Amino acid sequence: MRTYFNADHALHRGRHEMFRGEMVPCFEVPDRVDFVRAELERRAIGPLEVPPPAPLEALMRVHSARYLDFLAGAWDEWVALDPANAQRDAIPSYWPIRTFRSDVTPESFHARMGLFSFDAGTPLTAGSWAAARGGAACAIAGAKCIASGEHAAFALSRPPGHHAGVDFFGGYCFVNNAAVAAQALIDGGAKRVAVLDVDYHHGNGTQAIFYGRGDVFFASIHGDPRTEYPYYLGYADERGEGEGLGMNLNLPLARGTGFVPWRGALAHALIGIAQFGAEALVVSLGVDTFEQDPISGFRLQTDDYRHVGADIAAAGLPTLFVFEGGYAVAEVGVNTVNVLEGFAQARG
Amino acid sequence: MRTYFNADHALHRGRHEMFRGEMVPCFEVPDRVDFVRAELERRAIGPLEVPPPAPLEALMRVHSARYLDFLAGAWDEWVALDPANAQRDAIPSYWPIRTFRSDVTPESFHARMGLFSFDAGTPLTAGSWAAARGGAACAIAGAKCIASGEHAAFALSRPPGHHAGVDFFGGYCFVNNAAVAAQALIDGGAKRVAVLDVDYHHGNGTQAIFYGRGDVFFASIHGDPRTEYPYYLGYADERGEGEGLGMNLNLPLARGTGFVPWRGALAHALIGIAQFGAEALVVSLGVDTFEQDPISGFRLQTDDYRHVGADIAAAGLPTLFVFEGGYAVAEVGVNTVNVLEGFAQARG
Repeated sequence: MRTYFNADHALHRGRHEMFRGEMVPCFEVPDRVDFVRAELERRAIGPLEVPPPAPLEALMRVHSARYLDFLAGAWDEWVALDPANAQRDAIPSYWPIRTFRSDVTPESFHARMGLFSFDAGTPLTAGSWAAARGGAACAIAGAKCIASGEHAAFALSRPPGHHAGVDFFGGYCFVNNAAVAAQALIDGGAKRVAVLDVDYHHGNGTQAIFYGRGDVFFASIHGDPRTEYPYYLGYADERGEGEGLGMNLNLPLARGTGFVPWRGALAHALIGIAQFGAEALVVSLGVDTFEQDPISGFRLQTDDYRHVGADIAAAGLPTLFVFEGGYAVAEVGVNTVNVLEGFAQARG
Repeated sequence: MRTYFNADHALHRGRHEMFRGEMVPCFEVPDRVDFVRAELERRAIGPLEVPPPAPLEALMRVHSARYLDFLAGAWDEWVALDPANAQRDAIPSYWPIRTFRSDVTPESFHARMGLFSFDAGTPLTAGSWAAARGGAACAIAGAKCIASGEHAAFALSRPPGHHAGVDFFGGYCFVNNAAVAAQALIDGGAKRVAVLDVDYHHGNGTQAIFYGRGDVFFASIHGDPRTEYPYYLGYADERGEGEGLGMNLNLPLARGTGFVPWRGALAHALIGIAQFGAEALVVSLGVDTFEQDPISGFRLQTDDYRHVGADIAAAGLPTLFVFEGGYAVAEVGVNTVNVLEGFAQARG
């Protein structure tokens, strides 16, 4: 299985995030990818390839132009406000919740930071845009790889993407790599694509991007949003709308859930994907379902991840894995590669 | 002119707020009210009276029950999460912007902090609820005072209120004192009430609360939201909806505006209020229009505030002044009392 990797990911290196009301050191760190890469090489899973740059047009298929414009220029704007800002990350301060407008684009940089985000946990840094665009390049290259006939590919994208919506960042995500990949598959000729999100946290961005569409099925297994981030989306009654009605499948599970019931939910999701008739599968692969993850609450163990890969392989679809969360840094590599190896061995 | 004052305001004493992307000491401090009170006494403007407690029913006329329930219990929930929290204020971390749901009420305390707020600049403290309820008590007592035939009254409420919406806090505001007062006047028999908001910042909460109603006219003179907080509301094209169409008048002015053009906007607002046929007037009285205010951008000077009071008096309406913003702490007292004295002298 080919892996797409872009060293630019390391340009995104947040210092602090607002976490449950306190500023703490960032959980989403470059080391996460380094551990995955080392493990990929150790087990000789397949070649590592640097993708070509992501065309902005591919990102604009799922993100708004005003949002991407903002991301591209945000760091320079931030530093122009005060040269001292070069030494600190940008974090938003206010947000347009209900009764506020989102159709206005204020001149204030701080106002646009809030307009285009939904949390204070996702610092925007000097390298965020370059890293996010590099991550999307991995996803696009991976989509092309499976569209060209490969069984599977792995986009080792960082920062993660599944919380990013049409026009907002948050949850450590700036560009929705999985959504960009699914759209690239559609644009490449696929009629029906499924996104399976196995990250601990609901992929609110991916869901929202495709919520009204009949050509992309979204299934997610995640911590119950009543108690788990992102809290305001990911409930079982969200089934899609319009042409997308029935194309959204949320399988929230209680904090503390172990692998046996989790695997049942995975089977449920894979049945939904089969019934939908997907031609290709994009997997938002977070391994923060791991029992030792510092910010999550499921109890999957390292060996379980091989079964995750094998179960996904049983769907028999061209499959692109896109790297998402996982914050037990040292174990992220082994757990991620266990999924890929489990898939490869089952697929034969 | 009678002033309603509740010493409980001092129970709300935030430590730090997120301001333009940085944690800084709070601008909205108890001293603000102490300076006003001292100036009121120095100039013998009228008696100071402690209002009776605010009935929760009066607050529920403009705020949702689930929001008030949250406010009432939030501090205890926060400290129950970790005894160390008793020494730090609660600040939200994430928010349900577009595509997220607001109809869910997550169990997570942090999720509800974000559900019920729109910025990270409004720390919730041990005394926030008591102070906010005490401030609303001042507003309710003031409304009753003018309903009973007095020309004018002053509710020295703190924390301020005009940014608080039906179900969210933010902008240093928890309970919308001006809206509670306007509603109390309606509930007391007034057919048409006007709210005039002269704070530097748009009174987004008050606007949103009455946006669809024909019995409350809202006029606001404020810094242009393209560059000034709260950014996402307060534009001139917001004119009300349904029965409230035409009942909302926003007069945004550029940062740097001085008193002469500001006074023209005030005349414009007062004409609108006269045409509406208001029976009573509630004034959201912020003095952060002052040229030395640390977080605002108009250029009113201390003597100008006497004219503000006199112009408002010319409307000839029973008038309740409700204290809002103003952060040039030492001058807040003189500027506020200049408005009240200017009003009283013009009214005779």
